Amino acid sequence: MPFDDYQQLVFERRDHGVLLITINNPEKYNAADEVLHGELARVWREVDTDEQTRVAVITGAGRAFSAGGDLGMVERIAGDYDRVHHMLREMSEMVYNIIGCDKPIISAINGVAVGAGVVVALLSDVAIAAEDAKLGDGHVKLGVAAGDHAAIIWPLLAGMAKARYYLLTGEMVTGAEAEKLGMVAKALPRDQVLDEALRVADTLGTGSQQAIRLTKRSLNNWLRAAGPTFDQSAAYEMLTFMGPDVVEGYTALREKRAPRFPSAAD
Amino acid sequence: MPFDDYQQLVFERRDHGVLLITINNPEKYNAADEVLHGELARVWREVDTDEQTRVAVITGAGRAFSAGGDLGMVERIAGDYDRVHHMLREMSEMVYNIIGCDKPIISAINGVAVGAGVVVALLSDVAIAAEDAKLGDGHVKLGVAAGDHAAIIWPLLAGMAKARYYLLTGEMVTGAEAEKLGMVAKALPRDQVLDEALRVADTLGTGSQQAIRLTKRSLNNWLRAAGPTFDQSAAYEMLTFMGPDVVEGYTALREKRAPRFPSAAD
Amino acid sequence: MPFDDYQQLVFERRDHGVLLITINNPEKYNAADEVLHGELARVWREVDTDEQTRVAVITGAGRAFSAGGDLGMVERIAGDYDRVHHMLREMSEMVYNIIGCDKPIISAINGVAVGAGVVVALLSDVAIAAEDAKLGDGHVKLGVAAGDHAAIIWPLLAGMAKARYYLLTGEMVTGAEAEKLGMVAKALPRDQVLDEALRVADTLGTGSQQAIRLTKRSLNNWLRAAGPTFDQSAAYEMLTFMGPDVVEGYTALREKRAPRFPSAAD
Amino acid sequence: MPFDDYQQLVFERRDHGVLLITINNPEKYNAADEVLHGELARVWREVDTDEQTRVAVITGAGRAFSAGGDLGMVERIAGDYDRVHHMLREMSEMVYNIIGCDKPIISAINGVAVGAGVVVALLSDVAIAAEDAKLGDGHVKLGVAAGDHAAIIWPLLAGMAKARYYLLTGEMVTGAEAEKLGMVAKALPRDQVLDEALRVADTLGTGSQQAIRLTKRSLNNWLRAAGPTFDQSAAYEMLTFMGPDVVEGYTALREKRAPRFPSAAD
Amino acid sequence: MPFDDYQQLVFERRDHGVLLITINNPEKYNAADEVLHGELARVWREVDTDEQTRVAVITGAGRAFSAGGDLGMVERIAGDYDRVHHMLREMSEMVYNIIGCDKPIISAINGVAVGAGVVVALLSDVAIAAEDAKLGDGHVKLGVAAGDHAAIIWPLLAGMAKARYYLLTGEMVTGAEAEKLGMVAKALPRDQVLDEALRVADTLGTGSQQAIRLTKRSLNNWLRAAGPTFDQSAAYEMLTFMGPDVVEGYTALREKRAPRFPSAAD
Amino acid sequence: MPFDDYQQLVFERRDHGVLLITINNPEKYNAADEVLHGELARVWREVDTDEQTRVAVITGAGRAFSAGGDLGMVERIAGDYDRVHHMLREMSEMVYNIIGCDKPIISAINGVAVGAGVVVALLSDVAIAAEDAKLGDGHVKLGVAAGDHAAIIWPLLAGMAKARYYLLTGEMVTGAEAEKLGMVAKALPRDQVLDEALRVADTLGTGSQQAIRLTKRSLNNWLRAAGPTFDQSAAYEMLTFMGPDVVEGYTALREKRAPRFPSAAD
Repeated sequence: MPFDDYQQLVFERRDHGVLLITINNPEKYNAADEVLHGELARVWREVDTDEQTRVAVITGAGRAFSAGGDLGMVERIAGDYDRVHHMLREMSEMVYNIIGCDKPIISAINGVAVGAGVVVALLSDVAIAAEDAKLGDGHVKLGVAAGDHAAIIWPLLAGMAKARYYLLTGEMVTGAEAEKLGMVAKALPRDQVLDEALRVADTLGTGSQQAIRLTKRSLNNWLRAAGPTFDQSAAYEMLTFMGPDVVEGYTALREKRAPRFPSAAD
Repeated sequence: MPFDDYQQLVFERRDHGVLLITINNPEKYNAADEVLHGELARVWREVDTDEQTRVAVITGAGRAFSAGGDLGMVERIAGDYDRVHHMLREMSEMVYNIIGCDKPIISAINGVAVGAGVVVALLSDVAIAAEDAKLGDGHVKLGVAAGDHAAIIWPLLAGMAKARYYLLTGEMVTGAEAEKLGMVAKALPRDQVLDEALRVADTLGTGSQQAIRLTKRSLNNWLRAAGPTFDQSAAYEMLTFMGPDVVEGYTALREKRAPRFPSAAD
Repeated sequence: MPFDDYQQLVFERRDHGVLLITINNPEKYNAADEVLHGELARVWREVDTDEQTRVAVITGAGRAFSAGGDLGMVERIAGDYDRVHHMLREMSEMVYNIIGCDKPIISAINGVAVGAGVVVALLSDVAIAAEDAKLGDGHVKLGVAAGDHAAIIWPLLAGMAKARYYLLTGEMVTGAEAEKLGMVAKALPRDQVLDEALRVADTLGTGSQQAIRLTKRSLNNWLRAAGPTFDQSAAYEMLTFMGPDVVEGYTALREKRAPRFPSAAD
Repeated sequence: MPFDDYQQLVFERRDHGVLLITINNPEKYNAADEVLHGELARVWREVDTDEQTRVAVITGAGRAFSAGGDLGMVERIAGDYDRVHHMLREMSEMVYNIIGCDKPIISAINGVAVGAGVVVALLSDVAIAAEDAKLGDGHVKLGVAAGDHAAIIWPLLAGMAKARYYLLTGEMVTGAEAEKLGMVAKALPRDQVLDEALRVADTLGTGSQQAIRLTKRSLNNWLRAAGPTFDQSAAYEMLTFMGPDVVEGYTALREKRAPRFPSAAD
Repeated sequence: MPFDDYQQLVFERRDHGVLLITINNPEKYNAADEVLHGELARVWREVDTDEQTRVAVITGAGRAFSAGGDLGMVERIAGDYDRVHHMLREMSEMVYNIIGCDKPIISAINGVAVGAGVVVALLSDVAIAAEDAKLGDGHVKLGVAAGDHAAIIWPLLAGMAKARYYLLTGEMVTGAEAEKLGMVAKALPRDQVLDEALRVADTLGTGSQQAIRLTKRSLNNWLRAAGPTFDQSAAYEMLTFMGPDVVEGYTALREKRAPRFPSAAD
Repeated sequence: MPFDDYQQLVFERRDHGVLLITINNPEKYNAADEVLHGELARVWREVDTDEQTRVAVITGAGRAFSAGGDLGMVERIAGDYDRVHHMLREMSEMVYNIIGCDKPIISAINGVAVGAGVVVALLSDVAIAAEDAKLGDGHVKLGVAAGDHAAIIWPLLAGMAKARYYLLTGEMVTGAEAEKLGMVAKALPRDQVLDEALRVADTLGTGSQQAIRLTKRSLNNWLRAAGPTFDQSAAYEMLTFMGPDVVEGYTALREKRAPRFPSAAD
């Protein structure tokens, strides 16, 4: 099986070509460190070429979907020019690999989805969220520009007014609110999320594969057309990773206090 | 009158330059065969040049707005290279003729709107739907890519998350849900739909014609800018019309059973 | 202080780099005459370069945010080729200066917002509206094309179906409805609007300035990409300002009667 | 034959589905008055639907291809709001009908091509010019913005630097220079132009029709994507037709003297 | 070495991270059969991830660069729905993998470049052509739409007028003409082509890698922005591969006679 | 006069509203330090609002137009996060202020144009270059991404193949070559450059101002549409200014030796 060399993703083949992928680091709430970030970037190309897979469903083990970027990883990247360039590239791969994967991807957002987690959750073709899951993009709270996926899709999900509000303030929404905002396809009680995701997966796995894949591909050209805006936002995020605000950002997070950003000093 | 040679569309001139167009094949629920498909493609150019018309209102006779593509037509097109090319062209004309018509078009969606019906319903400038009408794009259920209008406008109507869900699964929505999703301007009890459409038509017919037409034209440049994405989706639909899934699709529909698509065979 | 030479805008510096701007012509409901229109166009460049300012909040004195274009101004522009060109240019500056201002702008929409008022309200980065405020774009009712901002952002705020309906009919929405449509970030009781705007402003004023500004800049490329569509709509508005409908439009408004537009004469 | 009701265009059917269209008003150098302008706008839709036609070749009778807008027409339009709106619409039809015509169009530019003539010449799929023909867009010399086709295609033909130079100064180029700039496919001695155009027409008329039409259609999406920029330029042209410069422009032309534009008065 | 499993591509590592790739099937003039087509699609991802490679140079063994699609492959694909879908996907991968490869690619076009060969040649970052090499896109001569790369880049290389001429007629150009048209960076005598390509490669291999890669990436957003137009053209090509013209096309080619396309039958 | 507070730009008013701007630091070949960079960014807004100016002509004093970025400035910016952010913003202002200036700008490129000099030279509306002037974008040679204007306009000037070659290698072209590539409108002997620029300026200064300004505005929407690609490239340049390659880049330049970039170390 082509998925043997993954450390933090677990794979289960089900009927009708459904591949269930579980983010499996529940003690750390599936937070993305360098390993998981890399795996979430490259797995979609293998989904794309794996002949047995027709639909992928991704969910999180335990209570979280994926609880954002691991703080240690943030610290290691901040100010490190080579890691910043590696991240710029991997971030781009994650986004374009999800968009470019011909096969449909369903996210079963069983709990909190932040950082790389919310990238996968919102770029997936069908997002089913727990009503009480928390979703959001907290980049600005960390002192970096919102760069890894937001600019390419939030305006098309939630509309410009809501997108600007949540991305500029870094506030979170519940799954129920996300559904009302148009960010996910459905919000359900937490214990029904995976079942519904698998039900939709069966529908897609038994449907006409060419019809489904080509429909996905033409819809996603709305995202590809916004590619330069994404690339720009990714570069801005990495540029801000080279500055002092992000240092204060992760320090404050670690010390569980409000940040006092140098750029906002009176 | 320039509208004399239509077989399935009935025209009534009303005050204030309002032209009421009725899709008139109620026994077949106004399903689109080759004749109706052609008429729904070309009528907008005549609306555009007819000097007496300032606003067009389109509705369906009987209980349906237009119940999708006639199954016989689907069978005749499937695998027939010349008909496929004719359809590719006519599909493009329908979409660009509605978008390019300078005069406003109002759809009074009195009942089910599928196939060419939902193209006209959702591309029209003002859509008023019966709360219990069913709308949807079931292309993937037939085994073909969603090509005739969806990719050019659904992401701008319902947002990307909802557009992807409904287009990939082929599920239908009611008029009431469509209004909540932002797909139609209003949802009303069925017996008020035409009255409200005609009220809006009077407003537009007595309003400043240049102001209204130029406002329509600049708004529609959002759609024209997505033209290549539409053309791509139309080509995908026609390509899948040349394959085996669509044969299983219409056969299953005819036999009222779930399809077993060759492309999804285990 | 660089803001000394404004006649209708009042400025107050607050903590955390928050600049509170009040549109101050309450007896005329802050309607935009030539002076206010010019000030609302250029103020954002000074906000952008003023070193003490990190966030701008704009609101209206009295019961209105800004009650549309002053009728006298409309009369003076109509048919006057030089004023029309001046307006074409100033309209463009207003839109691009708001979009291009690196610092976030928050609108506290305390009451009616029409004309230049709704331009500022809806193009701002965070819009907080009174639940009972009225917002809308009534250009077509005046006999001119909706040109000054609508085409660049309404489809991304409210979706295409709702945008078309409200812009073609000129109907108004309440703040509460605007929130439901996705046009503003929040709707609140009128007396909480400014407080909430200032709370958000403090959040942004103490946040990472680079992170916030670059996040704004990449999101706004969605609007810049629609720039040609805006420029087209602005030219259409000015073209219709050279015609007879607008004369009937302001005359009817002045006489508080329904307009009888020449272009819609039977 | 569907082309019976044309006054200034003459049609000849040739082998292989080639339709030769001749602009036939040689005493006036085929200058475009209202009749010819309308015919050059609508003829392409009939070419598109005429079953016997596979390729259209257009040329001019006598020494000119088409020597620009008839001065009388310019005078009648200037300042006339209704004619301006009619022209805005017809200009748009000419451009989009050429772009949207599925069948290839070849221009045999036998002599001077200005005004509607250069629109047809440069938007056609294959342009063959006489080496000594003069081509150009002299809108600014007349006191109006270059609006009827230039912005949609010159930057893609001649590159931005050359496009700006020629459009801002209104200078003309010879066919030989046009070939060097990339504006036409070939420049040849005048007496070989039509023969070469007919040779290419035969190649296209005996080629695979679907292959050729779909290749044209996908290439032309570069133009459709620039549609808003064209629409904007067309509105600018019409707006300037409502001002005083154009009056001085045609007066100076009639009096064969340099214009003294009011907008450039010291 | 990651390049061990290639059959028709030969790899040589040189100084400064230069990887020389030779298309190695000289008896068949490096014509692309299914194996080579697949290898030319996937090799760029491995170039991208191979740590030792900074620049790739690609050339052909013997007298040709790559002499187009192998006729046997064309026959096997024509009318075969599954192969058509496989080709649609592989064609897309070839284009997007070249565009998306962060490292610069240099093509040393030593001889004829047609089919997949001209895709690689013209999408590469630096193209150096033999003055007497023949380049071209002959899709329409085969009876299929020009789909595999032309629409995404020819208008940006040669300008719209020349692009349309060569793509609609299927005529070839020499390397010297290609340089004059702007399609390649340089044309040189055949025996200097590889040396110059390697000289440029050394320049890029010793240059600042981030600077070069990010410059490539931002330039290529011009191509990514035209992605939907490419996808559309690819779908058109595959659609025409399902029709009768292509059968006549390859038969005529095999029989070395002019084709008599069914779609152009009188 | 509004231009009193400039240190390195000298202004001369001439007839017909022509404003001649001279970059005046001839001993340093008009190289751009922080002061000149700032002045070249903001001057266009004052040109835009200055009522006496209709056309601007910009040239360099002495033998150079502007010989690139002052090396001291490069050293001060490299690795300095705040200066990098200031430059990111000023670079954006320079580009958008030139594009957005309603009045035409003519560059008389009397000698070498690099750095901010080539930004102004190539973004101006009419570029007249000395045949022996050297133009180019050497960013990659300095170890930073080509960011300050190249990505927004080179593909539209020189075509994609030439743009990629010159930007990836950092090679220079002469004015004569630039004219052949389509990068400037004209190349002339050095002593005729300013005269020709002033001749064109008189033509534009006595022409219809609205016609010229609106023609410029619609043409420049091709550039505005590429805005996200520019913003991305600017962010990439600034990101690489935070890394080690640029340090080696300016050190090597200062020591007049070939750089040995860390990113290209074997």
